[in-house]
Amino acid sequence: MERVLLSHGGGGTMMEKLIEEVFAKAFNNEYIDAMEDAALILGNLTFTTDSFTVKPLFFPGGDIGKLAVCGTVNDASMRGAKPLFLTSAFIIEEGFSLEELRKIVESMEDTAKKAGVKIVAGDTKVVEKGSVDKVFINTSGIGMVYEGANVSIKNARPGDVVLISGTIGDHGMAIMSAREELQFDPPILSDVSPLNKMIEKLMTLGKAVKVLRDPTRGGVAEVLYEISKMSGVGIKIYEDKLPVKESVKSACDLMGFDFLHLANEGKLIAVVDRKYAEEALEIMKSDKYGKDAAIIGEVNDSKLVTINTVYGTSRIIDRPIGELLPRIC
Amino acid sequence: MERVLLSHGGGGTMMEKLIEEVFAKAFNNEYIDAMEDAALILGNLTFTTDSFTVKPLFFPGGDIGKLAVCGTVNDASMRGAKPLFLTSAFIIEEGFSLEELRKIVESMEDTAKKAGVKIVAGDTKVVEKGSVDKVFINTSGIGMVYEGANVSIKNARPGDVVLISGTIGDHGMAIMSAREELQFDPPILSDVSPLNKMIEKLMTLGKAVKVLRDPTRGGVAEVLYEISKMSGVGIKIYEDKLPVKESVKSACDLMGFDFLHLANEGKLIAVVDRKYAEEALEIMKSDKYGKDAAIIGEVNDSKLVTINTVYGTSRIIDRPIGELLPRIC
Repeated sequence: MERVLLSHGGGGTMMEKLIEEVFAKAFNNEYIDAMEDAALILGNLTFTTDSFTVKPLFFPGGDIGKLAVCGTVNDASMRGAKPLFLTSAFIIEEGFSLEELRKIVESMEDTAKKAGVKIVAGDTKVVEKGSVDKVFINTSGIGMVYEGANVSIKNARPGDVVLISGTIGDHGMAIMSAREELQFDPPILSDVSPLNKMIEKLMTLGKAVKVLRDPTRGGVAEVLYEISKMSGVGIKIYEDKLPVKESVKSACDLMGFDFLHLANEGKLIAVVDRKYAEEALEIMKSDKYGKDAAIIGEVNDSKLVTINTVYGTSRIIDRPIGELLPRIC
Repeated sequence: MERVLLSHGGGGTMMEKLIEEVFAKAFNNEYIDAMEDAALILGNLTFTTDSFTVKPLFFPGGDIGKLAVCGTVNDASMRGAKPLFLTSAFIIEEGFSLEELRKIVESMEDTAKKAGVKIVAGDTKVVEKGSVDKVFINTSGIGMVYEGANVSIKNARPGDVVLISGTIGDHGMAIMSAREELQFDPPILSDVSPLNKMIEKLMTLGKAVKVLRDPTRGGVAEVLYEISKMSGVGIKIYEDKLPVKESVKSACDLMGFDFLHLANEGKLIAVVDRKYAEEALEIMKSDKYGKDAAIIGEVNDSKLVTINTVYGTSRIIDRPIGELLPRIC
């Protein structure tokens, strides 16, 4: 009998297959588009959902509550929309500490306030001990598309420029280090952050901003592949332009990970019209969460996703297949 | 250390306390109202969320997929709104059968089609074996309030009439019988159904429809208490008017349950202006899911929730405290 595997949740080709063959096939309507971060409804609203099962619940730089708010705030943002309202639904294991629950809920509200969104409705389920691992949270969100915005995973064109808003792989490595009790000096903190204010400023560039995407599960590599596939283009990035913390880079070398596959929770990849690339970079750099932003590559007509290495060679980037690390979000 | 108990998820006073002290306290804004089924946003839209952890996944009369769609369709409906769009988020245990997953997803789509709503976005997480019991689903929904509607848990007034759209306790007893492998002849089926089309017809009565509520966790008793509390009124119901299947009644007698505490997933309680009560009853009876509808009581100014028994006595209805039966939805 066919079974669901951990790799089906890993944000790579296995997950794409599961979504296409099971979910998108059944929920087949004019609104659903398995490859976009948000559905567009009622003209100019975005509607998204995301469940969070991160382990541990509290990790360096954040916690499941902060992650649950940022994740849904960022999903709306990546369609060129201003996130407005969130719901929050908790599934709690019997016996879970009420004090930890309060901490998580307060972290959600604190993050929502900072992002300028409101949590307007909720649901609470409690299940018997052993039926869920501590607490899982779902957040769903409504956003409003900015006037004049036209952001879609399908809009990249040869000649466009690819930017990233900061260092790569921080969240994935922070979770890994928390779970494996690895010590780094300085400690590696998750980048979990709400990106909606950066996007609000970016959207002043209007249609010059073509694609926005947050490289969560599957990392930067997966996002580049999705853009390539859905826009029907190739992408070349430059290794020497990629912002990566030294600590993350050494940890990756040590453990044999490719930082391009590590999850981020406070970064965005933008594909921008070449004429506006420098302006977009300046906007990112002026934002609290974008000071390490960089232009990292460009769109071409090759249909390949490649990297020019620091050794002067060029290679195809591996697309993630399955699960590098389960439950990073 | 204080801990979360199963009874905190049971839809009674313990859950009310958890919501008030933890969630509503933190998520304190002008939109959130812990006692309403749906938040009102952007003028005339409703926004709701609900997670489903029902056990077993397939039960007499339905499955978790059908339940997940009906639950959120009904939540929007109970604010006098037409449900339009749903999201669906799955948390799946590693090793879960792909065939069962397909069945659940197809049941969701089938129910959504029947209800006339669209599932427009989704999320899929897979967690390690033992971290979740098979599969949990969250659905969130957007609805549009009907022109002229003013439905709220706060709108009941002395003199109004209380109606129920059909037999009481079917879902709770169906789950119980499936879980305990009890055999009834005829079998007790869950009443899980989308009520939005019945509500669409009811809303032609405009402001005469004052309160709508689906008696899920905590059952009819809990809904009557919530109306009493939030509207500042009393409610009297009549035992001889309550529609209950003989099989459900005998099972309750046998097991010592009060059917007023059993969950329903395809029933609504309506508080209606007395002048329109008969008309509302006819509308319910003409609907596929309302043929056993009945006028069951009235609103008074006593602040008490009472029942006139078949023996001619009157007693206060017990408010549910905690968990009658975990994971019924």
